[in-house]
Amino acid sequence: MKITILTLFPDMFDGFLNTSIIKKARLKDLVDIQIVDFRKHTNDKHTRVDEYPFGGGQGMVLMCQPLLDCLRYVRKPESHVILMEPSGTTFSQKKARELSKMDDIIIMCGHYEGYDARIAEYVDEEISIGDYILTGGELGSMVVTDAIVRLLRGVIADDSSVDESFENDLLEYPQYTRPIDYEGKIVPEVLLSGHHENIRKFRLKESLKKTLRRRPDLLEKHQFTKEEERMLEDIKLEMRLENENTEEETDS
Amino acid sequence: MKITILTLFPDMFDGFLNTSIIKKARLKDLVDIQIVDFRKHTNDKHTRVDEYPFGGGQGMVLMCQPLLDCLRYVRKPESHVILMEPSGTTFSQKKARELSKMDDIIIMCGHYEGYDARIAEYVDEEISIGDYILTGGELGSMVVTDAIVRLLRGVIADDSSVDESFENDLLEYPQYTRPIDYEGKIVPEVLLSGHHENIRKFRLKESLKKTLRRRPDLLEKHQFTKEEERMLEDIKLEMRLENENTEEETDS
Repeated sequence: MKITILTLFPDMFDGFLNTSIIKKARLKDLVDIQIVDFRKHTNDKHTRVDEYPFGGGQGMVLMCQPLLDCLRYVRKPESHVILMEPSGTTFSQKKARELSKMDDIIIMCGHYEGYDARIAEYVDEEISIGDYILTGGELGSMVVTDAIVRLLRGVIADDSSVDESFENDLLEYPQYTRPIDYEGKIVPEVLLSGHHENIRKFRLKESLKKTLRRRPDLLEKHQFTKEEERMLEDIKLEMRLENENTEEETDS
Repeated sequence: MKITILTLFPDMFDGFLNTSIIKKARLKDLVDIQIVDFRKHTNDKHTRVDEYPFGGGQGMVLMCQPLLDCLRYVRKPESHVILMEPSGTTFSQKKARELSKMDDIIIMCGHYEGYDARIAEYVDEEISIGDYILTGGELGSMVVTDAIVRLLRGVIADDSSVDESFENDLLEYPQYTRPIDYEGKIVPEVLLSGHHENIRKFRLKESLKKTLRRRPDLLEKHQFTKEEERMLEDIKLEMRLENENTEEETDS
């Protein structure tokens, strides 16, 4: 897979490209990541890439010419072109999976105030990594790249990406490691029992409980098995009993 | 403001710290960002920081000791401690504003598989930047830092952060700059009129229209003015008429 990122700040990517999993994936030739400075494509004699907005307003707006001429330079017929843009579709694990199946992805990053709106007409999709404002699209393009690359075959152990948060609309169960007692906080006994079926049930129930408490919106999308349905009923009953006990304690 | 980031990959932050707005904010002493390698705090003679999970499973789990001893080393009474964690509260512009008012923030990044669940008991909050899985918390910590720093007084022009997506639960209106005609795509005439009131209305309407089309969920939170309510009614009527026209064309 090839990922090409168009940016005004190519140096910002050095640490990202040369660390940990992304570095390994590049060295193993599982992904080719190219960073392209689109300022080099400007026709402006002062190498400007932005201009004041028509109609007035604060800040500057990226012009069509430098970014789109750069896009034409790197685009192939099979390229899938993404614009990092706060008002785009919110990025998700499902989208990461979808993109991880493509051969050639181009990600365009703006900086500061925004793009000329006509730029969006030249891309396949606009993506936002969340409902917050960043100084530019660079971090967003790294987030998208990181989420895609770790899903590529051979990048991390084949089965370690299945059991995780968001893959099946459930949050991950809590994990514990040595020591058994950390400052009086003890690892749940079942995890030390060696009883695989009980451990599986404990983890599934903790996963459901955490999702119900923190992200009930995810459960609406989740496809429940019969076992999960029963567990969720139990959890809700337990939570009601807990609440009633707390109320009684407060009353007395 | 001071932001301290605890990580196993300090080099990954070089580009981020030395680019654009973050660099300027640091040089102007508006923010002090420290990157701390928590591997240096491990008691393990092989400098390990992770271990196999109790109860089995793929991958490794970060142990309490190195990360929490590092936290104790940097934590002050006024520190607000954040754990980057996929199952945490989803980061938002509102959260960025809230954090931008604090004096001392510590952000802890895990990597690969996850943390010992007991670590969460030592932090003030767990934050996720979105519903997707990354190779570690480093990019998330940069996203949170970037969103906070750009809101600090003096970092960017004082009023340019007000008019934006998510600040008032509306997506930003489209911006245009030179040239007026780019490959046959023309800038909306009103923006060239110099008529400030019409430009304001045009932008507000485009902002509402974009939000209704792309992110109707945001409108549910938005506090409408009378003018906006009227505009939204107009937009909905226009959209209905458009749909009917399209249907008629398909019918004939």
